Amino acid sequence: MTQRVAVIGAGPSGLAQLRAFQSAARKGAEIPEVVCFEKQSNWGGLWNYTWRTGTDEHGEPVHGSMYRYLWTNGPKEGLEFADYPFEEHFGKQIASYPPRAVMFDYIEGRVKKAGVRDWIRFNSVVRWIEYDEEAQDFTVTVHDMTRDHVYKERFDHVIVASGHFSSPNVPEYPGFDQFYGRITHAHDFRDAREFSGQDVLVVGASYSAEDIGSQCWKYGAKSVTSCYRSAPMGFAWPDNWEEKPALVRVEGKTAFFTDGSSKTIDAIILCTGYRHYFPFLPDDLRLKTKNRLAAADLYKGVVYVDNPRMFYLGMQDQWFTFNMFDAQAWYVRDIIMNRIAVPADRQALMADVAEREAREEASDDVKYAIKYQGDYVKELIADTDYPSFDVDGACEAFFEWKHHKVDDIMGFRNHSYRSVITGTMAPPHHTPWKDALDDSMEAYLRN
Amino acid sequence: MTQRVAVIGAGPSGLAQLRAFQSAARKGAEIPEVVCFEKQSNWGGLWNYTWRTGTDEHGEPVHGSMYRYLWTNGPKEGLEFADYPFEEHFGKQIASYPPRAVMFDYIEGRVKKAGVRDWIRFNSVVRWIEYDEEAQDFTVTVHDMTRDHVYKERFDHVIVASGHFSSPNVPEYPGFDQFYGRITHAHDFRDAREFSGQDVLVVGASYSAEDIGSQCWKYGAKSVTSCYRSAPMGFAWPDNWEEKPALVRVEGKTAFFTDGSSKTIDAIILCTGYRHYFPFLPDDLRLKTKNRLAAADLYKGVVYVDNPRMFYLGMQDQWFTFNMFDAQAWYVRDIIMNRIAVPADRQALMADVAEREAREEASDDVKYAIKYQGDYVKELIADTDYPSFDVDGACEAFFEWKHHKVDDIMGFRNHSYRSVITGTMAPPHHTPWKDALDDSMEAYLRN
Repeated sequence: MTQRVAVIGAGPSGLAQLRAFQSAARKGAEIPEVVCFEKQSNWGGLWNYTWRTGTDEHGEPVHGSMYRYLWTNGPKEGLEFADYPFEEHFGKQIASYPPRAVMFDYIEGRVKKAGVRDWIRFNSVVRWIEYDEEAQDFTVTVHDMTRDHVYKERFDHVIVASGHFSSPNVPEYPGFDQFYGRITHAHDFRDAREFSGQDVLVVGASYSAEDIGSQCWKYGAKSVTSCYRSAPMGFAWPDNWEEKPALVRVEGKTAFFTDGSSKTIDAIILCTGYRHYFPFLPDDLRLKTKNRLAAADLYKGVVYVDNPRMFYLGMQDQWFTFNMFDAQAWYVRDIIMNRIAVPADRQALMADVAEREAREEASDDVKYAIKYQGDYVKELIADTDYPSFDVDGACEAFFEWKHHKVDDIMGFRNHSYRSVITGTMAPPHHTPWKDALDDSMEAYLRN
Repeated sequence: MTQRVAVIGAGPSGLAQLRAFQSAARKGAEIPEVVCFEKQSNWGGLWNYTWRTGTDEHGEPVHGSMYRYLWTNGPKEGLEFADYPFEEHFGKQIASYPPRAVMFDYIEGRVKKAGVRDWIRFNSVVRWIEYDEEAQDFTVTVHDMTRDHVYKERFDHVIVASGHFSSPNVPEYPGFDQFYGRITHAHDFRDAREFSGQDVLVVGASYSAEDIGSQCWKYGAKSVTSCYRSAPMGFAWPDNWEEKPALVRVEGKTAFFTDGSSKTIDAIILCTGYRHYFPFLPDDLRLKTKNRLAAADLYKGVVYVDNPRMFYLGMQDQWFTFNMFDAQAWYVRDIIMNRIAVPADRQALMADVAEREAREEASDDVKYAIKYQGDYVKELIADTDYPSFDVDGACEAFFEWKHHKVDDIMGFRNHSYRSVITGTMAPPHHTPWKDALDDSMEAYLRN
């Protein structure tokens, strides 16, 4: 009997999984029946932009954290699909930090070519999943929003690819309930022009704070103030950007910080991260992990140790993204297709997790972390037929990128890098990032 | 064996249900075990204000649609609890349009006195409910957010009291994905001061549009534009408030209307209503109804015709609120306690629904609608020991209120009405609504 595999989510990870199975089928293998459940009306996950915030047209939490004018915040040379280079998609090499629309087109190009859209049930919210010990299968309860109909189906495997940058972590500070201005989380940030002319406070010191603050600055905020708990981002900010230590409280329109200073602000954007969130899973199937490189309870970073018929993709903190999801998807495919064996002994699975954790914790160095994840990608790729590529070269691009940011935080996106897939050097972009206000695909590809 | 009853939600409807059972127990009756599941950390439902928008601290859609500075938009004399008058709670009669904090205190006062807080499990999200035909009971799957633990319990009855002003109906108009300003739904509106100095477009012509527009006007919006699909609200608006016909599209910061006119706007607030939404219910238990006085598929407005062991409270469109929820809660209690019989014949249940629908549809007149719902309240009260009160008198207060709004939309809240429970006339408020910027309980009760 044909095995049935449920994939939850049609973002970069879920689509990688569909492409992995389709690739095996194209090479003549018999593959399981794959059904992908996607709550949005289109594929692309976070790259599928919506103007909506809060709840979507069906009443479900909006998945997207994507905002207008987003360009990748790392070079595209670090995330290129090994089986589908940018040059193949665009017919030419393109600049290194594409805006969202360009990235969406690229992601979509590969799966259009693969012809897997029919495998996806859109507007389909997975409500609940249970595992039946006796039958050794999963019952998936799905709400088909188009027909407003709930149904159940059984699957031999479940692959959770629903992402972990969708459910915001939203701390409360004293005075928030009486603050006179707008308080929003990065998840609900959409258009930087909304903050034009305003004094904006960005809470946080990681990638969202850096990029959303930069967007506000680029699109005309009067000033940007960012604040940190542990350490400042420390870039050479423009004159109207100030870094403060931690926020203590707000009152009226004033924010107070731990150094005793204060500032009048119009709006607060909480760039305070995201949480792994799986409202459709019972205790025995639900991953609980911090956002780290060695995610908890996942053998080889993908097999759920408490039920090895269940898999999670892309649940790690990420330097590598698309090609890491690919490496994981190919690996999971090969486990399901019995090409790769998973140890039957739970102790062996846990030992693998423990080893990864210990190795991650051995150093705080950023280069170490990048190499650590590069090694992980190499480890998975070695066992499948995913096209091998110069992972060390991709790491080098990341190292360079880090330097370029330190040199000029508002100018690092003007740099170019060499593709580790095709060996081609990216052209410089025609306009410096800070002056390129039009983020359309047409504008970006005009060279 | 003791029956077990699950109540979903600890807002005004759910709390009415707890109070109804407690009231019977106090009179010496043996009552079922009642467990109330509340996803928020406190009771009060919509009256439990949160500054949060989008998803709550647990990742669930924020329940609250409450905003700062909200005063009741109808006289309190229409919603007074018959078993707990305002005078009993505050020790004196108070003015007729209390702000949120005052209303919250009043709601809480009754249930504190009843001592039912222990019946409520807070931070508990009902994930899924199924009915077992054989055992004739319900299995409720609950996510305890405090312990991040999912568990199941069985109940003989389920009473859904989760409200229907929490899941926004959010239409899309051409250009929304490229609009330069903020787009939000009334559900995510929090503090009118956020829009101070701005040109605000309010989409809609019902209560949210009227009140949120008025809030923005009161707290310093530069201008308010409202637009309607069917008919203008038609009040005598202030000079900087303009009513337009339907929105067609937006472009940049300009909104275009069906009459060919356009207006530059900073922000759009969609006051486009709410939807009945029960993500925790399968097809055979899930109510599907429009927001109307005769809700679909509910015998006596509360018994679910497809499974009469299941009840819904407060699912009607509402002129009457708290005392109607009470009437329903007492009625459902008496069904469960076998004091009131529900016809065994499904046809009889359906006939009751059909009769209500036909009677509602017999007239478009507002007074007719108010009286229709008043009659419904009287019908339910007649069969239980809920204190009877002068429902016709409450209707009269509603009629007066309607006139006061036509006379002065920014001044109707300065009027007072007579309590139909205690017969006392409310005092005039010390400050006209438009000048009363402080909405705290202390400020309101200072007389």
